[in-house]
Amino acid sequence: MKPVVLLDFWASPFGQRCRIALAEKGVEYEYREENIMGNKSPLLLESNPVYKKIPVLIHDGKPVCESLIIVQYIDEVWPDRAPLLPADPYARAQARFWADFVDKKVRPPYADASHVFDSSPLRITTVFDGIDFPFHECATKLWQLNGDAQAAAKEEFIEILKLLEGELGDKKYFSGDAFGFVDIALVPFVCRFYTYETCAGFSIEAAAPKVVSWGKRCMERESVANALSDPHKIYEAVKVYRKRIGIE
Amino acid sequence: MKPVVLLDFWASPFGQRCRIALAEKGVEYEYREENIMGNKSPLLLESNPVYKKIPVLIHDGKPVCESLIIVQYIDEVWPDRAPLLPADPYARAQARFWADFVDKKVRPPYADASHVFDSSPLRITTVFDGIDFPFHECATKLWQLNGDAQAAAKEEFIEILKLLEGELGDKKYFSGDAFGFVDIALVPFVCRFYTYETCAGFSIEAAAPKVVSWGKRCMERESVANALSDPHKIYEAVKVYRKRIGIE
Repeated sequence: MKPVVLLDFWASPFGQRCRIALAEKGVEYEYREENIMGNKSPLLLESNPVYKKIPVLIHDGKPVCESLIIVQYIDEVWPDRAPLLPADPYARAQARFWADFVDKKVRPPYADASHVFDSSPLRITTVFDGIDFPFHECATKLWQLNGDAQAAAKEEFIEILKLLEGELGDKKYFSGDAFGFVDIALVPFVCRFYTYETCAGFSIEAAAPKVVSWGKRCMERESVANALSDPHKIYEAVKVYRKRIGIE
Repeated sequence: MKPVVLLDFWASPFGQRCRIALAEKGVEYEYREENIMGNKSPLLLESNPVYKKIPVLIHDGKPVCESLIIVQYIDEVWPDRAPLLPADPYARAQARFWADFVDKKVRPPYADASHVFDSSPLRITTVFDGIDFPFHECATKLWQLNGDAQAAAKEEFIEILKLLEGELGDKKYFSGDAFGFVDIALVPFVCRFYTYETCAGFSIEAAAPKVVSWGKRCMERESVANALSDPHKIYEAVKVYRKRIGIE
């Protein structure tokens, strides 16, 4: 086992955050794809006994869990290259606020559709056609609902995009000229934009053109381009799923 | 306006976190009680335009929102006294993990009862008899439900307590000998234990004796004792509320 190991799943936006941070820092690591369908590795189960989910960063045998905590850990352990959080305490608090906003707002709307699956609050993944997705992924209201419910979800999503658009403004990245913490928190969702747009029938660029430009700017970074999933691969998987629940 | 202002609400566990951190650091500040029932102050609305909720720390005119982010900010701005996060990156990551666990697990189970009120995901407070509580407070399953649903909530809560009990072990505080970040995240809920126990009919001490001892140890600190609410005052408010929704 290498000194740095990442337990991950290809399509996980949370795992992608960690991959981007490690690449920005130039940290060499061993990537281990987890079968999150139920046959989780003993290493995952013992490394993250509380949530039993990826991503987990194992550094010198010690596990760190939860993607935003992992990214901050990476920033603190390898501080010499590509600082991810700003040095100023106020700017750091702002970066933490917006990264947390992404977790609270861009992610959780998906969780509301939990009644479609098992409603147990401890159930965080769902099995479908032999493929397992992180729960949030499957439950996305934008592609899981139809009609009025989908329209409401779309409105909510656009409201969230507009808040992000306002915070980004004319800056190159969320914290200014340097790619950093908020960018890493949000950018994995960019490769899901195509799916959101296609399923819910709207244009993210029309709602938040600056966010879309920012996403393209981020994709020019090798760290991001290498970590993100192919938007069409995600869409294809989602389409199969939509058929399965009878809305396509 | 003093250089440091805290917009808060007496019963908010999240506000209490900030009060404890400021007291630990010996920072003088102006406390402003907010009427969170709907007549929120213009200062709150402009300081936290995204969530419009307390607590907000305003330092030299600049607002910081979200309690755990505020506590980290306080730790970074006043680093010379009573460090709240450990110095070692791995210990810091562990502290962040458990503080986040408190936010995810001790808080969110309450949110599941949202159907009792307005189900809008943007609605975070609810009005009741002229008093307003943070949403999580009113919606606590332990005191809002009866019968099987309450029993299930109790089981879930005990499971959470046992995880915290395991993490605490025989340490004085969650990070070891020094009172810090995880203690601050969790301790405001201690003054709600009496209500949980009385409404749901169980003993927290039986489930998690070390957590209860730790709570008492924390209460010996002036910073904590001054910040926490009277458990009976919280219980009385909850009782009125339970009558109102017809379960008492």
